[in-house]
Amino acid sequence: MKLYDGGKAPNPRRVRIYLAEKEIDVLLEAVDMNKLGHKSELISSRNPLQRLPVLELDDGTIISESVAICRYFEELHPEPALMGVDAVDKAVVEMWQRRMEMHLLLLVANVFRHAHPAMADWEVPQVKEFSDANKPKVMTTLAWLNAELKDREFIAGDRFSIADITAMIAIDFMKPARLQVPEDHKYLLAWYKNVKMRPSADA
Amino acid sequence: MKLYDGGKAPNPRRVRIYLAEKEIDVLLEAVDMNKLGHKSELISSRNPLQRLPVLELDDGTIISESVAICRYFEELHPEPALMGVDAVDKAVVEMWQRRMEMHLLLLVANVFRHAHPAMADWEVPQVKEFSDANKPKVMTTLAWLNAELKDREFIAGDRFSIADITAMIAIDFMKPARLQVPEDHKYLLAWYKNVKMRPSADA
Repeated sequence: MKLYDGGKAPNPRRVRIYLAEKEIDVLLEAVDMNKLGHKSELISSRNPLQRLPVLELDDGTIISESVAICRYFEELHPEPALMGVDAVDKAVVEMWQRRMEMHLLLLVANVFRHAHPAMADWEVPQVKEFSDANKPKVMTTLAWLNAELKDREFIAGDRFSIADITAMIAIDFMKPARLQVPEDHKYLLAWYKNVKMRPSADA
Repeated sequence: MKLYDGGKAPNPRRVRIYLAEKEIDVLLEAVDMNKLGHKSELISSRNPLQRLPVLELDDGTIISESVAICRYFEELHPEPALMGVDAVDKAVVEMWQRRMEMHLLLLVANVFRHAHPAMADWEVPQVKEFSDANKPKVMTTLAWLNAELKDREFIAGDRFSIADITAMIAIDFMKPARLQVPEDHKYLLAWYKNVKMRPSADA
């Protein structure tokens, strides 16, 4: 088994943090996205969408999409549970993972990809007005999330989950997108400090 | 248990089709999205994102996000499997479900929401240039999907799955977005005809 990895980008990090939390060792093959390695024949032939990471099983089966890769490992190694423990909990974790993905990570990515000069060859065409339109939406999500975190330790409840990983990489991604968590969002900032202290955050 | 339903919109349909395939009866409460019922106190208090559908369990637990609602029922009623049968299959189905969501349904929604006059109060601000930017991306996905379907019956393999549901509602959604599947995409059109003939397609 081999994981084609993409370095510092949010999705490769998401899977590496997940694996670190699970203490699962997987052979990583570095792909340099700065040199457009994700558009190489090596990756394109495995994932026509030219996105990383990509997991290749020993029989040649390809699994792309970060959350699908995590699902594969979650099924094989249920403990510690990062995607829920029973029907209700699995649904609640998936709800929060998707909320963090569609209403935070995606919005931050839209701000970044449609405005940053380094993304001009990646996001064609860049639509600056769309980048700007996403900025207040990010702030709306952050305010909501701050209020949600008043009464619980983690995004999806009292247990660290994949929803925390997605939210953490989204907030990390705000830096290159030139966005900041407002200083008065104390519950959100306390949660962020807490998850960033976990050893997995450096994966 | 009660499902707050949203009529003809893609996500409410996604869950109703899933439930029809499973032959699961759930009490539906109609919410009129044309009258902005999704922004009412009834829905906002249950899902601050003001999106439908929303599932409310008997103990008051709220599950929003279509795929999370499906996950809940999949865990309780595994047969017929619509989200995979083992670790590899579950991961492959999730990969395809996500590909159809992020690289088809979302792109079609972008075309529609950022250009259609009826969406002016829903998508603020509408960015016409962004709508246009998504059109060729939809067509790229369709061409890829057509080639993929040459050698198999369903999106994620030889079994109907949630990935087919997401792809079908995305293609249905192309009509109000004023997009069309090219006539020479014969494998994609054969698949579409096949899934539209299933009784669940009318749910």
